[in-house]
Amino acid sequence: MTAAFSCPIFLPSTFSYNGNRYHGRIKIKINATSSTKVKTLNEIAGAGKGSSSLATSTEIGHLSQEQIRQRIPTKKQLVDPYRQGLIIERGVGYRQTVVVRSYEVGPYKTATLESLLNLFQETALNHVWMSGLLSNGFGATHGMVRNNLIWVVSRMQVQVDHYPIWGEVLEIDTWVGASGKNGMRRDWLIRSQATGITYARATSTWVMMNEKTRRLSKMPEEVRDEISPWFIDKRAINEDVPEKIVKLDDNARYVNSDLKPKRSDLDMNHHVNNVKYVRWMLETIPDKFLGSHQLSGIVLEYRRECGSSDRVQSLCQPDEDETLTNGVEQSLHKNMILTPGLMEGNGYLGPLDVKSYGYTHLLQIKGDSKNEEIVRGRTRWRKKLSTLPNSS
Amino acid sequence: MTAAFSCPIFLPSTFSYNGNRYHGRIKIKINATSSTKVKTLNEIAGAGKGSSSLATSTEIGHLSQEQIRQRIPTKKQLVDPYRQGLIIERGVGYRQTVVVRSYEVGPYKTATLESLLNLFQETALNHVWMSGLLSNGFGATHGMVRNNLIWVVSRMQVQVDHYPIWGEVLEIDTWVGASGKNGMRRDWLIRSQATGITYARATSTWVMMNEKTRRLSKMPEEVRDEISPWFIDKRAINEDVPEKIVKLDDNARYVNSDLKPKRSDLDMNHHVNNVKYVRWMLETIPDKFLGSHQLSGIVLEYRRECGSSDRVQSLCQPDEDETLTNGVEQSLHKNMILTPGLMEGNGYLGPLDVKSYGYTHLLQIKGDSKNEEIVRGRTRWRKKLSTLPNSS
Repeated sequence: MTAAFSCPIFLPSTFSYNGNRYHGRIKIKINATSSTKVKTLNEIAGAGKGSSSLATSTEIGHLSQEQIRQRIPTKKQLVDPYRQGLIIERGVGYRQTVVVRSYEVGPYKTATLESLLNLFQETALNHVWMSGLLSNGFGATHGMVRNNLIWVVSRMQVQVDHYPIWGEVLEIDTWVGASGKNGMRRDWLIRSQATGITYARATSTWVMMNEKTRRLSKMPEEVRDEISPWFIDKRAINEDVPEKIVKLDDNARYVNSDLKPKRSDLDMNHHVNNVKYVRWMLETIPDKFLGSHQLSGIVLEYRRECGSSDRVQSLCQPDEDETLTNGVEQSLHKNMILTPGLMEGNGYLGPLDVKSYGYTHLLQIKGDSKNEEIVRGRTRWRKKLSTLPNSS
Repeated sequence: MTAAFSCPIFLPSTFSYNGNRYHGRIKIKINATSSTKVKTLNEIAGAGKGSSSLATSTEIGHLSQEQIRQRIPTKKQLVDPYRQGLIIERGVGYRQTVVVRSYEVGPYKTATLESLLNLFQETALNHVWMSGLLSNGFGATHGMVRNNLIWVVSRMQVQVDHYPIWGEVLEIDTWVGASGKNGMRRDWLIRSQATGITYARATSTWVMMNEKTRRLSKMPEEVRDEISPWFIDKRAINEDVPEKIVKLDDNARYVNSDLKPKRSDLDMNHHVNNVKYVRWMLETIPDKFLGSHQLSGIVLEYRRECGSSDRVQSLCQPDEDETLTNGVEQSLHKNMILTPGLMEGNGYLGPLDVKSYGYTHLLQIKGDSKNEEIVRGRTRWRKKLSTLPNSS
């Protein structure tokens, strides 16, 4: 029922610094500039000694080099000036201020869904970072590493009311809560820093997997003791009964069988990062529809991991005939009908949501005998009203 | 001789907010959370009034909405707390502190070249942002917009000595200088914030193009008056005579003719972003080589733009037989020979550079009668010494 969203990477015990072996006495000399210094690796290793909250091990070795460069806190931090992070919600929630960067926006100068998902991943990891619980992995706590456990995401839901634009300052809040007996929920809210208006909401469900057996695991008591003090009973998205996503078959309207993971699609775990899955899903939707519509919501149900040698097929199916619904849509917008009931609920802003379109998605690994599901998805779209030129 | 690296996007005069048309009296109501507010768009428009350095126009219209959300300064700023930016070098250079994010690193937990190029673009734009000269475009000054001019990059050179790792705090310095009579040079230095050690250096050359005629332009006096006070006579990379890059033909060893720009490759200008060009170049190098080598330097010579409907071919050619040089390389590293002469010059750190490999690259648009060059490139590589598992 799950696939790896993120996993810790277990480093070998060899002594290396940024991929190059060292012997502890090589002096690094660099050309003089206004702020260059001559330092030995011993001096570099000593650079972290001033801060008591950093790892105390400063021996010259692989892990200590990495610890010094990463500076993962071993105690809870309340403020991180570099990440512009802050512990909120009576000490257990996390807020980070971010600026939408020029390479995070698409042709319409608005942040892409991929960028939002990247920021969710980043703030989640920084939340764990601030907690002092982060071990040397991809979000795993010390207790999880002792038990060979990694986090796997089983479900992710995102609703976007407004897309932030290039240069806009955002506040991203994230927090965790219980999900059943052995799971964890993680939610996010993205707000405009200037106005306080909510732009996007997201929720996700996580379970633990044994990194060696690749089987799902109960949450050990020591891990529950680590993370449960951080649980908040608050939801970014209220949803009574999660929508069931049907499994598509070969009759799906749009099929892209030409997907091959590239080196740049792999994350720290040498697996295709889940954000790339979304790119594969969306690229299967016809360009004409993508050019005239904006994604307002997505639900993803992860089933299994995808490795670098897998060949992936992306299927998608619109809910109903697009030509017909496009016709209805246009007449609705011409009269700017605002349905009062649509002004509330699910965080949607009424006029943006007069009519929406749905697509069902499936990513699967093409096998010789049978196909294996990677992720099922549902996307919701609204018609763009912008008249920006679609030049090429 | 040039191709668009970045261009201003000229917005239509329609009144829209984030791609949705408004009529100035729609009240936005959102569900209550700990920091939500009820605001009208009039209130949103007024949100920027407090800061005298912001655009003073607060009428409700497309541009003012965008100005308020982007908050582009109209006067020189010395500090930007959101971007963690700072004016340095006697008032004309720019320094930004950034943290390497989880999605900016590749399988080896080190920042990808693509991420470094993205950060170069971001800090360059933020430098112009801080100067008070940024018009509503992709780096163009007010004087450039008045003259329908956009920046186009003609050359880019990057040297990477150390790849930063996930979570590492970096300082990126950038500054501009004269390049001939009508051009501009922009340089960058990336340093570890903790140690001051230089990780990467880059330099680029820019000229101006008329956005309508697509012809290169002289630098108008009013633009020279805007930007020349920011020029510094300092170079990140010392290079006496730029290496000439030969043009590859159909006899190149590796050819990838299967490249089609995707929606996610397009930038604000609806053109393939130059960073994607680099991805296409590198993907043409065999996986086996990429898995065992690390890029130490790249030179790019841009010739023309690439649009979304173009079909692109990527060619590359290694300098000499890889099998042979691989053999030599291994024996060299086994004995850790440090050649004193290699400890200096070009900012390279000696032991990383005992032996390097070169590739020549060409990206071109496949035409019916003739092909058109997009960019020529040269890459230099060093062997990875890391023993990180290459699992999939």
